[in-house]
Amino acid sequence: MKSKILKTTAIAMALSVGVAQAAEYKASTAEGPIKIVNLKTMEAQVQANMEKGAFGYIRGGAEDENNLRSNTTAFDKKYIMPRSLQGIEFSDLNLKTEFLGIKLDTPIIQAPMAAQGLAHQQGEVATAKGMAKAGSIFSLSTYGNKTIKEVADAQPGYPFFFQLYMSKNDAFNEYILSQAKQYGAKGIIMTIDSSVGGYREDDVKNNFQFPLGFANLEAFAKISDDKSKTGKGAGISEIYAQAKQAFTPADIQYVKKMSGLPVIVKGIESPEDADTAIKAGADAIWVSNHGGRQLDSAPATIDVLPAIAKVVNKRVPIVFDSGVRRGSHVFKALASGADVVAIGRPILYGLNLGGAEGVNSVIQHLNKELKINMMLGGAKTVKDIQATHLYTDASFNQ
Amino acid sequence: MKSKILKTTAIAMALSVGVAQAAEYKASTAEGPIKIVNLKTMEAQVQANMEKGAFGYIRGGAEDENNLRSNTTAFDKKYIMPRSLQGIEFSDLNLKTEFLGIKLDTPIIQAPMAAQGLAHQQGEVATAKGMAKAGSIFSLSTYGNKTIKEVADAQPGYPFFFQLYMSKNDAFNEYILSQAKQYGAKGIIMTIDSSVGGYREDDVKNNFQFPLGFANLEAFAKISDDKSKTGKGAGISEIYAQAKQAFTPADIQYVKKMSGLPVIVKGIESPEDADTAIKAGADAIWVSNHGGRQLDSAPATIDVLPAIAKVVNKRVPIVFDSGVRRGSHVFKALASGADVVAIGRPILYGLNLGGAEGVNSVIQHLNKELKINMMLGGAKTVKDIQATHLYTDASFNQ
Amino acid sequence: MKSKILKTTAIAMALSVGVAQAAEYKASTAEGPIKIVNLKTMEAQVQANMEKGAFGYIRGGAEDENNLRSNTTAFDKKYIMPRSLQGIEFSDLNLKTEFLGIKLDTPIIQAPMAAQGLAHQQGEVATAKGMAKAGSIFSLSTYGNKTIKEVADAQPGYPFFFQLYMSKNDAFNEYILSQAKQYGAKGIIMTIDSSVGGYREDDVKNNFQFPLGFANLEAFAKISDDKSKTGKGAGISEIYAQAKQAFTPADIQYVKKMSGLPVIVKGIESPEDADTAIKAGADAIWVSNHGGRQLDSAPATIDVLPAIAKVVNKRVPIVFDSGVRRGSHVFKALASGADVVAIGRPILYGLNLGGAEGVNSVIQHLNKELKINMMLGGAKTVKDIQATHLYTDASFNQ
Amino acid sequence: MKSKILKTTAIAMALSVGVAQAAEYKASTAEGPIKIVNLKTMEAQVQANMEKGAFGYIRGGAEDENNLRSNTTAFDKKYIMPRSLQGIEFSDLNLKTEFLGIKLDTPIIQAPMAAQGLAHQQGEVATAKGMAKAGSIFSLSTYGNKTIKEVADAQPGYPFFFQLYMSKNDAFNEYILSQAKQYGAKGIIMTIDSSVGGYREDDVKNNFQFPLGFANLEAFAKISDDKSKTGKGAGISEIYAQAKQAFTPADIQYVKKMSGLPVIVKGIESPEDADTAIKAGADAIWVSNHGGRQLDSAPATIDVLPAIAKVVNKRVPIVFDSGVRRGSHVFKALASGADVVAIGRPILYGLNLGGAEGVNSVIQHLNKELKINMMLGGAKTVKDIQATHLYTDASFNQ
Repeated sequence: MKSKILKTTAIAMALSVGVAQAAEYKASTAEGPIKIVNLKTMEAQVQANMEKGAFGYIRGGAEDENNLRSNTTAFDKKYIMPRSLQGIEFSDLNLKTEFLGIKLDTPIIQAPMAAQGLAHQQGEVATAKGMAKAGSIFSLSTYGNKTIKEVADAQPGYPFFFQLYMSKNDAFNEYILSQAKQYGAKGIIMTIDSSVGGYREDDVKNNFQFPLGFANLEAFAKISDDKSKTGKGAGISEIYAQAKQAFTPADIQYVKKMSGLPVIVKGIESPEDADTAIKAGADAIWVSNHGGRQLDSAPATIDVLPAIAKVVNKRVPIVFDSGVRRGSHVFKALASGADVVAIGRPILYGLNLGGAEGVNSVIQHLNKELKINMMLGGAKTVKDIQATHLYTDASFNQ
Repeated sequence: MKSKILKTTAIAMALSVGVAQAAEYKASTAEGPIKIVNLKTMEAQVQANMEKGAFGYIRGGAEDENNLRSNTTAFDKKYIMPRSLQGIEFSDLNLKTEFLGIKLDTPIIQAPMAAQGLAHQQGEVATAKGMAKAGSIFSLSTYGNKTIKEVADAQPGYPFFFQLYMSKNDAFNEYILSQAKQYGAKGIIMTIDSSVGGYREDDVKNNFQFPLGFANLEAFAKISDDKSKTGKGAGISEIYAQAKQAFTPADIQYVKKMSGLPVIVKGIESPEDADTAIKAGADAIWVSNHGGRQLDSAPATIDVLPAIAKVVNKRVPIVFDSGVRRGSHVFKALASGADVVAIGRPILYGLNLGGAEGVNSVIQHLNKELKINMMLGGAKTVKDIQATHLYTDASFNQ
Repeated sequence: MKSKILKTTAIAMALSVGVAQAAEYKASTAEGPIKIVNLKTMEAQVQANMEKGAFGYIRGGAEDENNLRSNTTAFDKKYIMPRSLQGIEFSDLNLKTEFLGIKLDTPIIQAPMAAQGLAHQQGEVATAKGMAKAGSIFSLSTYGNKTIKEVADAQPGYPFFFQLYMSKNDAFNEYILSQAKQYGAKGIIMTIDSSVGGYREDDVKNNFQFPLGFANLEAFAKISDDKSKTGKGAGISEIYAQAKQAFTPADIQYVKKMSGLPVIVKGIESPEDADTAIKAGADAIWVSNHGGRQLDSAPATIDVLPAIAKVVNKRVPIVFDSGVRRGSHVFKALASGADVVAIGRPILYGLNLGGAEGVNSVIQHLNKELKINMMLGGAKTVKDIQATHLYTDASFNQ
Repeated sequence: MKSKILKTTAIAMALSVGVAQAAEYKASTAEGPIKIVNLKTMEAQVQANMEKGAFGYIRGGAEDENNLRSNTTAFDKKYIMPRSLQGIEFSDLNLKTEFLGIKLDTPIIQAPMAAQGLAHQQGEVATAKGMAKAGSIFSLSTYGNKTIKEVADAQPGYPFFFQLYMSKNDAFNEYILSQAKQYGAKGIIMTIDSSVGGYREDDVKNNFQFPLGFANLEAFAKISDDKSKTGKGAGISEIYAQAKQAFTPADIQYVKKMSGLPVIVKGIESPEDADTAIKAGADAIWVSNHGGRQLDSAPATIDVLPAIAKVVNKRVPIVFDSGVRRGSHVFKALASGADVVAIGRPILYGLNLGGAEGVNSVIQHLNKELKINMMLGGAKTVKDIQATHLYTDASFNQ
């Protein structure tokens, strides 16, 4: 590794009154497996390594960050009962599973996140490589710093999803969905929980603006007369403002038809919305509160998952995210109705600290913790986890 | 802005043994919109800006301040379910509502508070201007530092309420109610929860006495032989001691008849008192525990609101206050039975930091947070919020 | 006040290996009313004023002090509903009540405590004077530093109780009960919860031994050949070891017959023991866990009071103590079934800081807080408080 | 005592890349009774006295140590009701009991723990002597630093158990069980909850490897061609990896038949596993979550004990451990269904601070606390404790 920091030429468009941002955004160029004790302590390492505004944007949650915290602490209210006479060999533990026909070496996938160039100079390309190494799947955000083509070329033959933030401009929607199809995306993650940006105070305090452009928006800008902002120098609320806000079931049908790909509707937290989305044709449901970044008064996702799973009733598979930081959290989400579990911020932390290999290290660490939990909880396979009953304090009131 | 601090000629009547107060009370003269990250962090800014006794009087609560804290933290026990398929455009969100026939641009009004000259040299006049700018309504306290005429003249044509602390002397009551009617008050807020001052330890420790006179009491003193204290140099308990204490339903009828105005009975926390007040003729109920300043063992207002709303059963509208610091709190109060939501201390903090414009900034900030919560919670109007079901931890026990 | 500290001639019998106690015990001689903000903050004032061992003995609780803390914090789980239309004048509030035929100006009495010479040079004599000044009743411990005659002479004509720690030696029991009767005690408080001393770690760490003799034990030692320890130089466990341990209902009958006085059985926390004591002839029940000094795993007294009151069913009056630090706590205990409420440690703190007047200051401060709570909670008399319904969080779950 | 620290010749096999462990492991040689205020504060004393890696190995728990903490804090949710009229003399309190036909002076036994040479140079031999002195029973771990013969010879005639970690190599199992039988073990503790090592972060951070060999593994290595690691220089996961993982009921039958001794199945936390073990022939059940060292998401043992006791229904006796640090904890475990209660880490702390006498001091301290709790809770014998009803907060909701 020659140099850890690449000086990008990105110049922040300092729009804020009286506060100029750093002239160049310095992204990490770290490469290599990283030693992880636990995912929580990675955060401080990354903080020491990243510009304040970028770190605030990645780490932050909405308002008082109650939801950001409760997403993780709510897992502690669920107990896994130790089981010891099931006759399981450690070497027989099996994390393999399948999602929408795609074979996965682990039930842990990556949640799509915008602007991964903030974490690493190679951005989404490195993440895609890392997830492929882990035998899992990469998802590219509409607001990524790399194009669909770039990530498709990164790991030829490996599956990836494309996360759509619909635009108010249907020409963009048609353009980007045709790109996704052309370059081989295996499904469209249609995010519906971001009709407006959550009130994230770190971004307000830091007056954060994206220092790097969103490659897909820039590509579209070149071929259209759409005057939309393309990321660089824009604040988050400006980006959200040009995105589509008023989602209805008809939008799900539109995306399905336009893309011809499976549509995973992301940002569901209520049983009602889950049912509506499925009836509108959703091929999978993604239970998420956007990692506590949107509605701070929302319940923790693990708290709402059982009721959603009941309503979904296996009509479509369920992806789960928000707050997952331990192998035990993955276990509990699977045992509460999820089919696969997605990880967000820790992936970017791994990316920042070790590039593609760092991303893989994060997944491998979670796999390791998950396997220990499976062994001690008496579950040999993902299906065994899903059949496991969890306990709460109420279970022990006699 | 020429000078931030105006040296008033107010000389504290240092009655306490051995402790002399500052000779002059220095009130803020700040003018202009203020930048707000959140309402909570305004408190420290104001504290750095205000004399200790005055700040203690404004900020403080009763006894251990359990109720002061729980009024706000109790909101965290209620969840808003994120909803994402309701087809709402941000530009269609509508905060307009109506209260006692008065049209409001926001469901957020200002709670009447005494002695606003402590926060700003222009006192209640600036607050009235700020609330008018926000398209909401101002309420003047009997213990204000400005007369009814002064605030009525501040914003001609704009609606305001007058908050009555009844006196033991009916001559005063008749005088002040006739003033309220003469100068155009749209209703009388009859405060019944302050038959004695709560035991506020900051005031005891600071030996706090009002450094400025109460304009309405001073005006009455000039035309009567009533020997009552008129504020300046008096402690809070001296002021409360000369106010009426023994409230009964007959007092509500008296105020209605005497003023000929709608009477809003403020300081209701039990369903029983709500029913009694309505049967006595109250035109509206104001659910409040005086911001945790009275009975420290009282429950949080948001905890008692649903039971009160059930008893009120839409016979009269409900105002709600105590502890509201977030747009989400406004949302939750409306969803629990309130028709409008009042804000206290933060208004004085805005007044202190920016005069009339600062007051408006506070309302605008809350409006902004509220709209984000409406968008993410799937409510387009105030009525939609009122029809929204809130969740608690008990909702997620399966 | 000439001098705040009197050098007593008490010489500690330093029995501990390698650690010598201070040669003389220096007790406070402070005299005069004290300014109290709240009872909690008195503790730090006293700590700065008292030898470490003595302070540890007075303040400390058993084991982890869970019970010491929960006795007070459990009050916070009960709410008083603000009531505002009951037509009560502050001047009409009435704290007077009656206990075992004794008229009291306040429902707040003093809990008997050993070794009050630790807090003040005049010890129990000053406490007796202070309680008389407050229009309440004093109780002398068997392990007091003053004799029954001394406290009876302190305030001739004023009622007092004698708290009996039964001895294994019946000659002592007969002697002391006849003294109590001879000098006019109005009742015997028979403490049954101290069959062994709780495991109080401060006393262990400080290797605490009483620096002053127990006057009643010393008096008996002069007229008997009983070789018992009489306090000075003894550890608490040595004192407890010579006291009677194996209490049965027959002991209650013995004390009643021997004294011919009403017997108040102190140290009841279970409904079963309350019923047993009443059936054995108890004239009153004293609900107490000894201020968290005995069984650290015990529930808070306010938590068990309702069930005890239900079983007692008004057959005899109920005294309540342990953890009371606020007027609101007195209110809540009375509303939960108590007839009078006793205060322990804060009385010694008042004694330490102001002698007899300091004791009175403590009662007056609590009376003041209590009256504010009565006014705001809508209760005019002690009987009104007792008829008040308290609320808990469960009341507000809808 | 000539020297507190014996320089052992143990040389750590520094296998970790770039980090060399201390060349010699310095174990305590302290001898003599220790003064104990409480068990909790012993931990800091030991920490100051022991190498970081060894202390981390002994103290640490899995992952976030939620289970490590909750094992102890869960006891605080159970209350012991003070009882005062049962007529009990302190001198009549009786801690004697019996387990599997072995007479014990206390219901408190020692939990088997590996590698006691880390705590003291005499290791398990000193622990065995200390437990004999306390009139209780010692258990030797397969991974002890002393052989079965050494601990049997330490206290001829005194009972001990042997804790079996089954090997994947049945030759070892046969060898070690025949040794246990030959040297007089009274029973086999068959640990089934360690099919994999819990994820203990202190060991990861310290890169901990055992500095001393496991005597029983070394003895077997000398007589076999088994290439297993024998402790010294090995990490915990390497040791666990060569142990048997896939436990089934058949293994219980195998150990019973092979040893001809009573088999106590240790590491049961679910009622289902308890029933399975008993049906497979277990002579006793040991309820344990390995002191919070295995599955961090497990419930506290005291929380699951009642449901297990109900299923066991007195078919076999129940041993209980994990989190016990107070006499009151012993009381509560017995009152919740346990027959004897085992102590882990505090035994090693006593061993470290005082050798055999230190071990005895720990038991005596717990006995002392337990007796105070019995006296104040109205229980004269172990059977009385077992018949005692515990209370929870729910008991006091009216």
